[in-house]
Amino acid sequence: MTDRVYNFSAGPAVLPVPVLEEAQKNLLSLPGVGMSVLESSHRSPHFTEIIETAEANLRNLLNVPDNYSLLFLQGGASLQFSMIAINFLGGTEKPADYILTGSWGKKAIKEAKREGTVNVAWDGADGNYNRVPEASELKLSDDAAYVHFTSNETIQGVEFPVEPSVGDTPLVCDSSSDILSRPIDIAKYDLLYAGAQKNMGPSGVTFVAISDRMLGKAPEQMHALLDYNLMAENKSLYNTPPTFGVYLVMLVTKWLIEEIGGLEQMSVINKQKASMLYDAIDESGGFYKGHAQLKSRSNMNVTWTLETPELEKEFLDEAKKQGLCELKGHRSVGGIRASIYNAMPVEGVTKLRDFMATFKESH
Amino acid sequence: MTDRVYNFSAGPAVLPVPVLEEAQKNLLSLPGVGMSVLESSHRSPHFTEIIETAEANLRNLLNVPDNYSLLFLQGGASLQFSMIAINFLGGTEKPADYILTGSWGKKAIKEAKREGTVNVAWDGADGNYNRVPEASELKLSDDAAYVHFTSNETIQGVEFPVEPSVGDTPLVCDSSSDILSRPIDIAKYDLLYAGAQKNMGPSGVTFVAISDRMLGKAPEQMHALLDYNLMAENKSLYNTPPTFGVYLVMLVTKWLIEEIGGLEQMSVINKQKASMLYDAIDESGGFYKGHAQLKSRSNMNVTWTLETPELEKEFLDEAKKQGLCELKGHRSVGGIRASIYNAMPVEGVTKLRDFMATFKESH
Repeated sequence: MTDRVYNFSAGPAVLPVPVLEEAQKNLLSLPGVGMSVLESSHRSPHFTEIIETAEANLRNLLNVPDNYSLLFLQGGASLQFSMIAINFLGGTEKPADYILTGSWGKKAIKEAKREGTVNVAWDGADGNYNRVPEASELKLSDDAAYVHFTSNETIQGVEFPVEPSVGDTPLVCDSSSDILSRPIDIAKYDLLYAGAQKNMGPSGVTFVAISDRMLGKAPEQMHALLDYNLMAENKSLYNTPPTFGVYLVMLVTKWLIEEIGGLEQMSVINKQKASMLYDAIDESGGFYKGHAQLKSRSNMNVTWTLETPELEKEFLDEAKKQGLCELKGHRSVGGIRASIYNAMPVEGVTKLRDFMATFKESH
Repeated sequence: MTDRVYNFSAGPAVLPVPVLEEAQKNLLSLPGVGMSVLESSHRSPHFTEIIETAEANLRNLLNVPDNYSLLFLQGGASLQFSMIAINFLGGTEKPADYILTGSWGKKAIKEAKREGTVNVAWDGADGNYNRVPEASELKLSDDAAYVHFTSNETIQGVEFPVEPSVGDTPLVCDSSSDILSRPIDIAKYDLLYAGAQKNMGPSGVTFVAISDRMLGKAPEQMHALLDYNLMAENKSLYNTPPTFGVYLVMLVTKWLIEEIGGLEQMSVINKQKASMLYDAIDESGGFYKGHAQLKSRSNMNVTWTLETPELEKEFLDEAKKQGLCELKGHRSVGGIRASIYNAMPVEGVTKLRDFMATFKESH
């Protein structure tokens, strides 16, 4: 334990220590089962209990009504970029509206364009993706197949404080980097998806919540692994799911319920952590420059720059010596990025905040 | 350790104990790194070393020449059923030849038919999929885009003793359930794929070996997660791979090299294990009836029936009491199936063999 660093990686990211400890304890044999979950058939009674518990925990945390299916898929958010377009844009003459607030939205659009017409309802390029749009700025189509947005752009550190209003058009959201960080009203979404490797578990599991209404719009004939209906009918067990990943999602959601007390409480802690870092930036007199505009600041990924790349390198090197790791900004934008997902303890953020102050003093 | 059973699951399946022990030891922190591999960025230096070692181990074990790319993908063999057809059958007028020896081949054909013409070059239905074809029985097309076969049918327990000869037509193989169980001549294959959850690691990782020649046949425009070239160019890191799964593949292949001594040695052990069970069947005077014909018997999945379903149930119940678990045949064919992959110790098979003798004596 003592050799663990504070890991600010954007994903795969830090996991709760109690989750890792439970997984470690049972890695050679689940209690009473005599084999590891890694070795267990996805159709065994004990894995059935695991996947059903994971789903039940997610229904509980996200307050999901019965007319939504919850799926555990593979391929990451990147495969969802394609699956969504193949299923819901491919066979229609309608356009799909994409609200573009950063790098992941761009990737989603790239795949969608292979299948049909994409209307970019807003593009944050002018401000170098430092904010989300006002409602009045959105140029939504009258007849869009769906509206897609990225609730939190991991690379830029830009987060929608609340989902955009899109009327009756199906709302589709890439929530990879802020799912389970705060309560949401899932009834506003027809399809919500998230790679697990930030707030839910390890990489290799992709969570999808999809409404019956949206399932009804999917084509009847579809490649099995791209077929939402087939996955829903088989409760994610059409083929072998990433079983160990689902097990960790079960443990992480259990931790959220039992240790944290739910998403309201998690949200309070997350805001507190983010405020510490944004305050350090704002009170630095320009020594640290935040990337995101005030109202669009992410509570998950705090991004900032220093005066020069050399100074940033020095910041990163000194931070690492103090056990503050993986703070380098994404290679596409540079600077510093502190990813402070659910599992990042307050102590880690406090230590980073204090380091920021000391570093500034000494430079 | 003492509470571990002998797990004959067809997959996800038993893993080598030293692999589980090393993963367990480091689950909270990789030595010198300070974080779990579960929490590590796929672009971190330590994960780079893991994925490169996994690839190097596989190149070593399978004797893979430089003109092949080795990929770690998601979606299981089932997504490969579609990806292969989308990439190599979709854009061509040529048919694809499928040699059908069991349940998984059927699923592969189902997806391929969505993309083009499938010629079933041989169908084992007449014998209820109890054997592989002779070379003379294959009705191959003159101009097939590729020939697909399933080297080992997990459900029926039918295995090709050697790959079919198909001339210069690209040979594509689903090797999910016998990969790494014996040496193969990879130069005979243009695309070899395998879900990891039998002989390589946990579910959620799909291994693909693909030749440069085959990569050259793939379309230039393709959805990112279905694009072999993109995956090869990015060394499986276009998006986040299933990192923990790749780590276990690295440990399993290390175990194969260092503890077992390579695939020749593994093959000797596997044949020895399989012979014990087939001998028990053959010497039972008809009490146990093997499904597969002699020359097509699988060294990985040994399948047999007893006189009645009631007797089979009794067999399974008594076996389980002795710690011999997951022996029930697949729900689609019934009977008994003992999956004896690389990681199943000889002691487990010996105990099963002895149990079979005792059970027969007492009935």
